[in-house]
Amino acid sequence: MIYFLSDYSQGAHPAVMEALMRTNMEHSDGYGTDRHCEHAASMIKEMIGIQDVQVHMMVGGTPCNITTIAAALRPYESVIALRTGHIYSHETGAIEATGHRVIAMDGVNGKLTPKLIDKALEEHQDEHTALPGMVYISQPTECGSVYSKAELTAISDKCREKSLYLYVDGARLGAALTCDRNDLSLSELAKLCDVFYIGGTKNGALFGEALVIRRPEIDHCFRYMIKRQGGLLARGRLIGVQFEALLEGGENSLYFKTAAHANKMAKIIREELGALGIAFYSNSPTNQVFPVLPTSVVTELKKDFAFHEWAPEKDGMIPIRLVTAWGTEEKDVECLVQAVKKLYRNMK
Amino acid sequence: MIYFLSDYSQGAHPAVMEALMRTNMEHSDGYGTDRHCEHAASMIKEMIGIQDVQVHMMVGGTPCNITTIAAALRPYESVIALRTGHIYSHETGAIEATGHRVIAMDGVNGKLTPKLIDKALEEHQDEHTALPGMVYISQPTECGSVYSKAELTAISDKCREKSLYLYVDGARLGAALTCDRNDLSLSELAKLCDVFYIGGTKNGALFGEALVIRRPEIDHCFRYMIKRQGGLLARGRLIGVQFEALLEGGENSLYFKTAAHANKMAKIIREELGALGIAFYSNSPTNQVFPVLPTSVVTELKKDFAFHEWAPEKDGMIPIRLVTAWGTEEKDVECLVQAVKKLYRNMK
Amino acid sequence: MIYFLSDYSQGAHPAVMEALMRTNMEHSDGYGTDRHCEHAASMIKEMIGIQDVQVHMMVGGTPCNITTIAAALRPYESVIALRTGHIYSHETGAIEATGHRVIAMDGVNGKLTPKLIDKALEEHQDEHTALPGMVYISQPTECGSVYSKAELTAISDKCREKSLYLYVDGARLGAALTCDRNDLSLSELAKLCDVFYIGGTKNGALFGEALVIRRPEIDHCFRYMIKRQGGLLARGRLIGVQFEALLEGGENSLYFKTAAHANKMAKIIREELGALGIAFYSNSPTNQVFPVLPTSVVTELKKDFAFHEWAPEKDGMIPIRLVTAWGTEEKDVECLVQAVKKLYRNMK
Amino acid sequence: MIYFLSDYSQGAHPAVMEALMRTNMEHSDGYGTDRHCEHAASMIKEMIGIQDVQVHMMVGGTPCNITTIAAALRPYESVIALRTGHIYSHETGAIEATGHRVIAMDGVNGKLTPKLIDKALEEHQDEHTALPGMVYISQPTECGSVYSKAELTAISDKCREKSLYLYVDGARLGAALTCDRNDLSLSELAKLCDVFYIGGTKNGALFGEALVIRRPEIDHCFRYMIKRQGGLLARGRLIGVQFEALLEGGENSLYFKTAAHANKMAKIIREELGALGIAFYSNSPTNQVFPVLPTSVVTELKKDFAFHEWAPEKDGMIPIRLVTAWGTEEKDVECLVQAVKKLYRNMK
Repeated sequence: MIYFLSDYSQGAHPAVMEALMRTNMEHSDGYGTDRHCEHAASMIKEMIGIQDVQVHMMVGGTPCNITTIAAALRPYESVIALRTGHIYSHETGAIEATGHRVIAMDGVNGKLTPKLIDKALEEHQDEHTALPGMVYISQPTECGSVYSKAELTAISDKCREKSLYLYVDGARLGAALTCDRNDLSLSELAKLCDVFYIGGTKNGALFGEALVIRRPEIDHCFRYMIKRQGGLLARGRLIGVQFEALLEGGENSLYFKTAAHANKMAKIIREELGALGIAFYSNSPTNQVFPVLPTSVVTELKKDFAFHEWAPEKDGMIPIRLVTAWGTEEKDVECLVQAVKKLYRNMK
Repeated sequence: MIYFLSDYSQGAHPAVMEALMRTNMEHSDGYGTDRHCEHAASMIKEMIGIQDVQVHMMVGGTPCNITTIAAALRPYESVIALRTGHIYSHETGAIEATGHRVIAMDGVNGKLTPKLIDKALEEHQDEHTALPGMVYISQPTECGSVYSKAELTAISDKCREKSLYLYVDGARLGAALTCDRNDLSLSELAKLCDVFYIGGTKNGALFGEALVIRRPEIDHCFRYMIKRQGGLLARGRLIGVQFEALLEGGENSLYFKTAAHANKMAKIIREELGALGIAFYSNSPTNQVFPVLPTSVVTELKKDFAFHEWAPEKDGMIPIRLVTAWGTEEKDVECLVQAVKKLYRNMK
Repeated sequence: MIYFLSDYSQGAHPAVMEALMRTNMEHSDGYGTDRHCEHAASMIKEMIGIQDVQVHMMVGGTPCNITTIAAALRPYESVIALRTGHIYSHETGAIEATGHRVIAMDGVNGKLTPKLIDKALEEHQDEHTALPGMVYISQPTECGSVYSKAELTAISDKCREKSLYLYVDGARLGAALTCDRNDLSLSELAKLCDVFYIGGTKNGALFGEALVIRRPEIDHCFRYMIKRQGGLLARGRLIGVQFEALLEGGENSLYFKTAAHANKMAKIIREELGALGIAFYSNSPTNQVFPVLPTSVVTELKKDFAFHEWAPEKDGMIPIRLVTAWGTEEKDVECLVQAVKKLYRNMK
Repeated sequence: MIYFLSDYSQGAHPAVMEALMRTNMEHSDGYGTDRHCEHAASMIKEMIGIQDVQVHMMVGGTPCNITTIAAALRPYESVIALRTGHIYSHETGAIEATGHRVIAMDGVNGKLTPKLIDKALEEHQDEHTALPGMVYISQPTECGSVYSKAELTAISDKCREKSLYLYVDGARLGAALTCDRNDLSLSELAKLCDVFYIGGTKNGALFGEALVIRRPEIDHCFRYMIKRQGGLLARGRLIGVQFEALLEGGENSLYFKTAAHANKMAKIIREELGALGIAFYSNSPTNQVFPVLPTSVVTELKKDFAFHEWAPEKDGMIPIRLVTAWGTEEKDVECLVQAVKKLYRNMK
């Protein structure tokens, strides 16, 4: 079985494991108040070129999202997102569990636009409505697409015009930053939003995300919020140690290398399958590929490859999701491509 | 100034006030555990022809909605509603404040359909989503339309098939039951849903709604829930007394008479304005009328009549909402019609 | 049956009912945005001698408490109260339902002290605890006692020293202000706290409390909060109309007269029963009296008088609660006193 | 610097790290639906001798507590705990954030009793109160003491009599089960309660606890609850892998060996310090020791040893907490004992 199931089906990058082993016998204070977390935070400040931020080492993406949203919004405020956004489509109502509405909009190629923000504001504007206080987007999006600098700037401008915080979910941020269609630097992205996170779980860490908060009022007593939401890890340093390993070297760090590698593997799949005339469910330049395949092909592929069906069958075709990761090897990709080619030949 | 602002801009029907005056010096236990509430409840059981229900006298519609939904759903469950539904569009995130998602769908003529329920279920079906546990509709809808017996039966069947509770918000239930397009009896409606309320506030009471719960598991410790949500009125009997006055006489009660009167007043407006070729924003046979008028006409009308603009101006036209109520008099309606006619004549 | 059950077992004071009748046919905007609410608010500002406050007309005490606390506190913050405090002992976890802890302390004669505040702070001081953000007290307390000016000042000073909001629940505020042991004016009380309410329900209104907010940050978007918590009444003006009737005349208003009357009735009971050597469960100078009576006396009294047993039987004695109100007549009190006297004579 | 700071100041036991390394390159499904989690669960069922339970691999103790309590209780229900209980004293209001009250009682030697449960029930018994639905205790307690079989049985009996769930927080369960005062087997403990967890974080794991649920109604859709509370780890298998390593061998497993070792190290400290006449803040037979030392001694000790001061200085004495763990070596303990002895000699 060859895996294209998710970017967390395997463990951590060996260099991350090695760092955890190397530091295992150290003693430190708990809950992320240790030198590794501090060092990782300073590395991030350096990378984004902004010193005046707070960095919190978080266990996972949902903890980032619920804690940030609950900390940033007043009780009656809501967050604007897409129906495909992770906080709407994959978190079991965790945001609503903190008392806040997710205003779910239908996007275009998985992306939010200033126009959609206006539409959400139009339906939420008096005291009988859950006033929007934040805009949530993912970079890349759930379907692998990326916001261009122009697109993100337009959203950022709209947010500032309307006094909305802009929060960027960076679960796969590495994939966005290293894909060949990207025109945004990490530093530019940081400046366009109020809070975002640099995802570790889906890019070589065992677990962990680095949440970067630019607004002091969101950060106010944020550690209380993390604990209250159940997200403060006793051995908080584990996340710090992993980010040290991932970010060492800045632009040449493992973080960018593993992401670029995953993108490269995905690109091969995309190009090879595209050459067969296969269409894609989503226009993704990152490490997720969504070919739409005949049901019979999907059935056969499943015997040797692990992946998710992404949407219900329609007219005999099924969109599947193939995810590449730090551990995906060129030979895995080659195997997959050959298998699809063979199945297509046999269909004729 | 003549008021078509809302069905609660005036006070209560004089007969309701009289009942409150007559019983004012009585003593009773607090919090709705008195003989008036008990009597009103038994009148309702009689009217709907089902004895095996629980009736709670509630202060208002939002308390009905939040208490019922919070009592019926498990923490991770959500409620399917329309984007125009009151719990989504007019309650400031009160449902989300209890920790539950409102899945907001786009309706047709303000109505939900089995197909839309399926669509909501499709996007919420695994453990990473906020599993739907209830369907919320209003009868009549926010835009005045009514579900036919066939439509409500289809929704009810879908709900039972999918193990979803069906909750009918009856803030203006009287208007639905007495409109000339209605083919549903109160008893039939009661049997098709799991919980609903008979609205008093918008049909002649000072305030108060009678919540009818058919499922024992929703009713379990419901009074604890009312209190927890801040909705248990010290002088609970006030609501019982009002419903006694409204429901006395069953089919011939004030409740149906005032609603029928309001509908009749609305019908005159609808017909007279329709005869002028005026279009309507919504197809409403009940006590709300939504003519789409030229901006200049709206501006003039506002000098003598109170009403809400219902949507933003578009192409020089504004949809307004005219609401009739127990206190609307035929001469008020006549005045309005004449004013519009005159303004239309002047336009030409 | 003569009632000493609660101060809301009867309806409203006739003058309040009269005002509701008189204004019933008026039209107004909904949700408390009408001239009666505005007028009542300005009367209150006048009475407390502070113009720079916001006044909100609320349906009941629990809505005041949950809305204020949820608006004032950050998510991880808690409110310090007594175990006997209404928010801890009588609101079914409504505060916790908004996500905030009530830190419950054991009081002395039903009162909180600066020392108890310090104790609560001591156990809640790092990021692993629910940081206190507010102190909640009732004036008078649940057991009828009143804070003296010195006591309230000491609590207020402690709150300011520790950056805690001070919130005074005035469900029976009239009784406190008019009792013969009171040395605090309404204006002084207002200045010592950050938010408080003037209770209507338990002092002659059908329902309704006037919430007075002195801190702009608590008031920020407060109407959104009221709606979100389910507490915004459609005919909001009803509360305004009632407070106009209650407060007309300032110091000589119905509000103070009815409270003074209730206190006077309670005082007769207290003095007459005290003269019989009867002890009291609580030292209350207000409209609640808590005589501790032999079980046999309680059993007999129950045949002709309605009241609550306040605590379980102990050593053959039961503390009962007798509440007087605007409608309690001197002959009711006389009846009660004679009945007790007779039962005591018979015991010997 | 020698560490007695916490049982998570160092990393994981080497055997746990080895297991993580060995399995790192495997692929598996996410979110704990893998063979390691399944295997660890079956090992636990075997150990407790009950097959009819559900086991969930959780990230930490607070996630266990909030998820279990939110899943088990109806919205208006509360949980009875001690003021020193972890959910009251160390989780920043995380339980209240799910809408439930923690009823905080004062314990004896850190323990809850049936009598205290009765007391909590007495103050919460009508619809105006937050009805208790669960009892929460820790084994061992926060101050290191352990419930005997008789004590736990009495609590369990009381819970069943009163229809309260009994939840045992086993963050340091290994220490309780292996201490020389313990007379309870894991299997007996499991049978006396409805839900409990076997703590990994504080007994050799990097992180992770195994939650064991005996009541199907608490387990109903529990994975939805974990996700909703933000606690579902993408690489859920990491926790399964760690518990496999810890539990391999049953009674002779690493889990019991590391706990017994930590207890043994603590016992040496306790006996050696006790022999000096030093008193203890708490009577703990487990891996936490709370000697009360002169402030001057504490000041000196801090130069070479890391530990927490446990309560404020009083009469020149400070209670400190010394925690031993899997990594504490006999020479560390010897160093500490010698240091204290020397400081005591110098005082004379």
